Amino acid sequence: MKVLVVGANGQIGKHLVSFIQDRDNMKAKAMIRKQEQASFFENLGAETAVVDLEDDIETIAEAAKGVDAVVFTAGSGPNTGPDKTILIDLDGAVKTMEAAKAAGVKRFVMISSFDTRREAILAANSSFAPYVAAKHYADERLRSTDLDYTIIHPGKLTNDGGTGQVEAAIEVERGEIPREDVASVIVATLENDSTISKEYQVVGGTTPIQDAVKSI
Amino acid sequence: MKVLVVGANGQIGKHLVSFIQDRDNMKAKAMIRKQEQASFFENLGAETAVVDLEDDIETIAEAAKGVDAVVFTAGSGPNTGPDKTILIDLDGAVKTMEAAKAAGVKRFVMISSFDTRREAILAANSSFAPYVAAKHYADERLRSTDLDYTIIHPGKLTNDGGTGQVEAAIEVERGEIPREDVASVIVATLENDSTISKEYQVVGGTTPIQDAVKSI
Repeated sequence: MKVLVVGANGQIGKHLVSFIQDRDNMKAKAMIRKQEQASFFENLGAETAVVDLEDDIETIAEAAKGVDAVVFTAGSGPNTGPDKTILIDLDGAVKTMEAAKAAGVKRFVMISSFDTRREAILAANSSFAPYVAAKHYADERLRSTDLDYTIIHPGKLTNDGGTGQVEAAIEVERGEIPREDVASVIVATLENDSTISKEYQVVGGTTPIQDAVKSI
Repeated sequence: MKVLVVGANGQIGKHLVSFIQDRDNMKAKAMIRKQEQASFFENLGAETAVVDLEDDIETIAEAAKGVDAVVFTAGSGPNTGPDKTILIDLDGAVKTMEAAKAAGVKRFVMISSFDTRREAILAANSSFAPYVAAKHYADERLRSTDLDYTIIHPGKLTNDGGTGQVEAAIEVERGEIPREDVASVIVATLENDSTISKEYQVVGGTTPIQDAVKSI
């Protein structure tokens, strides 16, 4: 299985490419914004594609050609300027969905935020609300495509080392999760087609990741 | 016909409420963000409703109850902070559509920007692109509702006095248009059900506004 990792140079993305490359039956193609980011991924033996999410659909589709799955883990993040929030977290995501379709790729895994329901936009503080809104509309759009999607809603991301154990369900209590564990959750999601057309929240917990994801 | 004007305190909105109040067969309800904005509209004999577009759908629906049409002419505008762009121009618009539906209002007139196609997002400069993206997704959402919508795409807005004459079609050459004429175009659109499920660009021109809108 060849996986295009969109946002490979992010913290989750780097763990993800590394874990994919460790698998016998998977290969990563790292989509990055700048050529100088390529060496990290080349050292892992991964292919790279230099594409900006502000480029057009055709350019993104070119990178998606020949892969079996797309993982969208790009994100301006809640701390970037809100001008990038709509252009990356919403429009970049929608263009990537269109690009997957254009390239004939069906499997699409979206890394969303913990709660992207309408109520969460209203509840968010003013600096976080634009980010939640962007993720809300991106998730909504993905559900309406005919892609084989999974939407992962991780809790508060930390840089702690992975534990290999999580709690995952449609709704779980708010909590933290190491980025390294999110990357493992993505790999498990790609390996379990039972997650197609589903979405789930995931935080740190006591269930081995493979079991937690299988039970979704 | 009673018309809820969302964004009444904007420059187009003020002209629009005034023109609606001048008609024998129309009445305006001005949706405004602050109580201190009410007197302008009360002096025109219009009803007012104090609602923030960052409020929830139920609150907006309360304002829409009993009206026959909703006009969305609110806008953070291209010069507001981009955090408001996604929350007002996209999410505020979508919440207003949902509110219209909840209140049983079918007719919905959207004041969009001149070109909101995907290519226009790519072509826009970096300060304008978030605004174009927000309008792109709002328009796209409106087309997918079962509201009796019309999307008006005006050219570059000016504060010149209205001329009463425009050019309107699915595509026209880029040009300017006084905000006062946009307000007249909205009134003509509300009066012509032939504009339902259509959208058109409009700039200054030589055709009387009623004729131009009727020919859409």
